[in-house]
Amino acid sequence: MVHRIHNFNAGPAALPLVVLEEIQSEFLDFKNTGMSIIEMSHRSKTYNDVIEDAQTRIKRLLKLSDQYHVLFIQGGASMQFCMIPMNLAADNDAVDYVDTGTWSSKAIKEAKLLGKKVNVAASSSDRNYAYIPKDLNLNPNAAYVHITSNNTIKGTQWKTFPDTAGVPLIADMSSDILSRPMNIEPFGLIYAGAQKNMGPAGVAVAIIREDMAALPSEQLPTMLRYATYVKEHSLYNTPPCFTIYVIQLVAKWLEETIGGLEKMELLNRQKADLLYETIDEPGFYRGTADLDSRSLMNVTFRLPSEELEKQFVAEAAENGLGGLKGHRSVGGCRASIYNATGLDAVKALVEFMRDFAEKKA
Amino acid sequence: MVHRIHNFNAGPAALPLVVLEEIQSEFLDFKNTGMSIIEMSHRSKTYNDVIEDAQTRIKRLLKLSDQYHVLFIQGGASMQFCMIPMNLAADNDAVDYVDTGTWSSKAIKEAKLLGKKVNVAASSSDRNYAYIPKDLNLNPNAAYVHITSNNTIKGTQWKTFPDTAGVPLIADMSSDILSRPMNIEPFGLIYAGAQKNMGPAGVAVAIIREDMAALPSEQLPTMLRYATYVKEHSLYNTPPCFTIYVIQLVAKWLEETIGGLEKMELLNRQKADLLYETIDEPGFYRGTADLDSRSLMNVTFRLPSEELEKQFVAEAAENGLGGLKGHRSVGGCRASIYNATGLDAVKALVEFMRDFAEKKA
Repeated sequence: MVHRIHNFNAGPAALPLVVLEEIQSEFLDFKNTGMSIIEMSHRSKTYNDVIEDAQTRIKRLLKLSDQYHVLFIQGGASMQFCMIPMNLAADNDAVDYVDTGTWSSKAIKEAKLLGKKVNVAASSSDRNYAYIPKDLNLNPNAAYVHITSNNTIKGTQWKTFPDTAGVPLIADMSSDILSRPMNIEPFGLIYAGAQKNMGPAGVAVAIIREDMAALPSEQLPTMLRYATYVKEHSLYNTPPCFTIYVIQLVAKWLEETIGGLEKMELLNRQKADLLYETIDEPGFYRGTADLDSRSLMNVTFRLPSEELEKQFVAEAAENGLGGLKGHRSVGGCRASIYNATGLDAVKALVEFMRDFAEKKA
Repeated sequence: MVHRIHNFNAGPAALPLVVLEEIQSEFLDFKNTGMSIIEMSHRSKTYNDVIEDAQTRIKRLLKLSDQYHVLFIQGGASMQFCMIPMNLAADNDAVDYVDTGTWSSKAIKEAKLLGKKVNVAASSSDRNYAYIPKDLNLNPNAAYVHITSNNTIKGTQWKTFPDTAGVPLIADMSSDILSRPMNIEPFGLIYAGAQKNMGPAGVAVAIIREDMAALPSEQLPTMLRYATYVKEHSLYNTPPCFTIYVIQLVAKWLEETIGGLEKMELLNRQKADLLYETIDEPGFYRGTADLDSRSLMNVTFRLPSEELEKQFVAEAAENGLGGLKGHRSVGGCRASIYNATGLDAVKALVEFMRDFAEKKA
């Protein structure tokens, strides 16, 4: 029996065990080719089937129209922070950003570096990013409006998306992509580092609408143009083959084992409800995000003291519950419960939390 | 018994079977953490040991002084084609490039796009890149001189490196890094996509000298500055964790199983000699590269007709010898014999080649 913990890491994070087992079983000989998936040409028919299936499944899961292209781009979400202003706004263009935490701030920094006129349309920095702002001061002439759909560090999440009156919406969905169904139409671009809800680190999935991909970009380096990835089907150069292969298997698991994003959302709600109920029992735990902004993916909470938080994380680890330490920039505790973290893991955590509170209160 | 072919792919390419087996065996539970290597935080002690060991082993294998930093950067060698002129030459600076084939040409294209004054110091395009030029028309005021140490498509390789009279030398070593010992001192930067001699696709290893890394780059996007990777030890954002882990295991195999780069070079010479001898037997096969420019990594050759080449590739595949088709841009045949392709594979190929020639001649 293989030793496996309940994994609450914020990313890289838990992946479905059946996916890991499939990778393991075919690792020395992929589909009877006599090669590992990491030893074969990215231009072979065998590999082409993998990357195409990954794209097709993502399109089907998100119900994307033919207007959208699914791209695989190296560099994670951090590379998108610069590719977006480079590609999707002209020099001196005005761009809107909503500031909801660390990752939004980093996106803003890169847009400024690239000389765009950044309007911070709203910020929740006044209360340590504990909420998603409701009133946005949007510029009708902005090239785009950028938001971070889920804030991994602060544990907040947009429940509905803002009406931008036709200005293309762009979202960093690194920590909640494929966790719920959504209407993609207002979005010109969504992007996500793979290592939270989709696969291993080493790629960003970017889903771009035709009109955004068609903006002029010939003056940019070839590898930094969305148009290159659209034209070459993400195969301009050698892609991160293994990472895309795992994404394909995770997408297959979402479709065939879970049964689609509606079912995934139900499960995710069930897990989050269970955890927040436990946190809200009076007297010991305290959630850090406003009730109406709470994330279904990253559940952030505090204990009565930092000393107790340290004990909590250590004792949880001893009990096979890993990754519960809050981000180094904010402290406290955090349980990341992405798609692949099962209800069983959350039940085990909740039980541990009740025992711990009883013992220490 | 697992089904494995003799793999002559140009990249992604063969990896040592013992490395693949180690990955497979610990894939569900890495070092008793209860997690896969692809499920754990890149900031954990466990993962930090992996990335540091990878860097240390590469430094030791190449006998690098403390002046050099080993960086892991996403985007492959193609991303380096733009990062180099961005970071290492000021606006309108003159830069020297030697054009020895497809990859050199792509590097030149990106430098021009970025507004650098590109001097092509030599080119072997006059004879379809069949040789490495000897006479270079170098500009003593160039910011750097760029070469491609091994040309995967054309099957040529620099045997010794040019004297650039103090101008920093930069080399794309994607297809021969770690295949032989070398004196690194004249180099300001060497870089290589991992997927030929080091691991899976999805990262470039860049080895940069202190003075080059210290050039001003604050105006560039954070992810496109070498200084970011130096300062943050390639952990500014989530790195491609799995790819780096495989590189670590391959470097360990090079040190502990092969016994270092001197021994690796001997083996590589033995393999290449065997193949070139067979090609040079009169009457059937014909090498495409000049004798003094022949690559030890990519052995390119033609048969008397394209029809025979097609038959050769197909029959070889039926006999468990894969990846022998030449690059789609040049045709013909190519056997890539990187570090992990064993002498046994080359012996099997040579035997097949002799049988085929006898049958068809």
